[in-house]
Amino acid sequence: MELVEQMLSGNMASLARLVSLIEGGSSEVSHIMKLVYPHTGKAYRVGLTGPPGLGKSTIVDRLTAVARSQGLRVGIIAVDPTSPFSGGALLGDRIRMQQHYLDEGVFIRSMATRGSLGGLPRTVSEVINVIDASGKDIILIETVGVGQSELDIIKNVDTVIVVLAPESGDNIQTMKAGLLEIADIFMVNKADRPGADDLISEMRAMLQLHSEQTQWEIPIVATEAVNNVGIDELYRQIQLHRECVNETGLLAQRRQQQRREQFINTLEKEISAELLEIIKQDGQLNRYVDDVEKGEIDPYSAADKVLNSKAFLITLSQQLSQRKRPGN
Amino acid sequence: MELVEQMLSGNMASLARLVSLIEGGSSEVSHIMKLVYPHTGKAYRVGLTGPPGLGKSTIVDRLTAVARSQGLRVGIIAVDPTSPFSGGALLGDRIRMQQHYLDEGVFIRSMATRGSLGGLPRTVSEVINVIDASGKDIILIETVGVGQSELDIIKNVDTVIVVLAPESGDNIQTMKAGLLEIADIFMVNKADRPGADDLISEMRAMLQLHSEQTQWEIPIVATEAVNNVGIDELYRQIQLHRECVNETGLLAQRRQQQRREQFINTLEKEISAELLEIIKQDGQLNRYVDDVEKGEIDPYSAADKVLNSKAFLITLSQQLSQRKRPGN
Repeated sequence: MELVEQMLSGNMASLARLVSLIEGGSSEVSHIMKLVYPHTGKAYRVGLTGPPGLGKSTIVDRLTAVARSQGLRVGIIAVDPTSPFSGGALLGDRIRMQQHYLDEGVFIRSMATRGSLGGLPRTVSEVINVIDASGKDIILIETVGVGQSELDIIKNVDTVIVVLAPESGDNIQTMKAGLLEIADIFMVNKADRPGADDLISEMRAMLQLHSEQTQWEIPIVATEAVNNVGIDELYRQIQLHRECVNETGLLAQRRQQQRREQFINTLEKEISAELLEIIKQDGQLNRYVDDVEKGEIDPYSAADKVLNSKAFLITLSQQLSQRKRPGN
Repeated sequence: MELVEQMLSGNMASLARLVSLIEGGSSEVSHIMKLVYPHTGKAYRVGLTGPPGLGKSTIVDRLTAVARSQGLRVGIIAVDPTSPFSGGALLGDRIRMQQHYLDEGVFIRSMATRGSLGGLPRTVSEVINVIDASGKDIILIETVGVGQSELDIIKNVDTVIVVLAPESGDNIQTMKAGLLEIADIFMVNKADRPGADDLISEMRAMLQLHSEQTQWEIPIVATEAVNNVGIDELYRQIQLHRECVNETGLLAQRRQQQRREQFINTLEKEISAELLEIIKQDGQLNRYVDDVEKGEIDPYSAADKVLNSKAFLITLSQQLSQRKRPGN
């Protein structure tokens, strides 16, 4: 596939087109990913998550500058509707980000959240892999929300940074136990604001309380991203965590798990797609949908009838084995 | 099934056990739901959602008191880790809630969020239906989070109340467009606090800007739930919305859609379950999982190989048609 060839040879326009194909759910995704996969696994993936309004995009902006100063190529994925990278936030923020938009060594992509309020898009892991294959050294993924997106992110990155700020205090209180489970690095941004010291000591106490026998001690990094304060330390902690997961084998383990999930997900997705297709085309099955909608049969009995129908099972296996996908 | 019979005749202990079976993913769920389904559809379902710490449980508590004073039986589902109903929050809150725990006309259930940070549990629609069948008149579902849970909730309830408070101001700003999509009623709790008036006028302006030609005009209700201020008005608005969706046919439409999704979800869930079972038991498929984990084959090519394997398809249809479920 020419587009993939071009992307692999460093053409950023081709990369952008491939990402669009993936996001749009093109029927060529499976074919694209087969070609892309052998070239993945080199980029280090860092996720930043936390409530909106805490300056996550500024942090991504600053981290990108540090990585670029070391000659590294950077991919940025903003799944945050409030991010200047994805067109949200204030005009000033967006202008500030433009230095990276003009930099050939930086690829920036914003992705829509799954719903209007959050959740990582289902295609994010494919997009990460394509950007990885294009030769980026580090990929920064910015997500927002207190909810499903945090759970998704640990499945897709190597280091998770949870961003808090003094103003997030009250709401975040109750979430602490959950945040603890996913954070590799805590950072307190806007550390010059009132309440920052209290927040840091509270978090330190909480970390001591929950400390487990692991090789990695979760650090708390205080930053003022707008003033570029603490960013070098944050970058250093990312490096330290990277070394740690490398040495302990945790990185290999996480990536194994990611590949396994990708496999099962792909199977489920393909089978579900055929299922929906069959239901759409088959008159008998369509009648079940009607009956269920009208309440004439309950959804569970209807599902049973479908799964016990020989005709359905024969069609399903025929369709699955005859899937005509481009490139198959 | 005796347990279902007892539940239908009003036994609350049986209801609690059924809910536990459903939450635990019992193999009897499909059988239970078939027996339960004919008795569902009578309870009116109200969802309350919004960031944590805004007093949602107190609102649920107060609404329950109003409904009880009218002789209605109430079901409460708390999918909010910070809710006193689910054991979170302060001791004082929990003591206050005890009046309802001792009331035979109120059934309270807390459910774990899907992950540690949010998301409605997958079984919530089954739990709602069982509580409905047990003869409750109104079911209040309290969820937390800015994320996936809001998107889930509109699929499961008839009226969605989005709760805001002055202190939620900054973080919620950026979410407004999304909240607008799901809210049937906006409420501003803690309306005595500074900033409440500003929040209300802002929201009013936003509603005017986005107002569409619909039969329902989204109201903004100001409350101080701890002081029982505004609760009657909130209850009245729920009634008005209920009448509106009844008359316009929107209720029937929403419920049709819910039944349809339940049907498709059940089909997908059953097929996925068999799929995982087959992979676990089949040596050849297990080898694919190993190879994928080791990176020796990419997940997409492996999925293709499985879906093109005659042996797999034969096993899949055999397993699907031979599913031995209790009660089948």
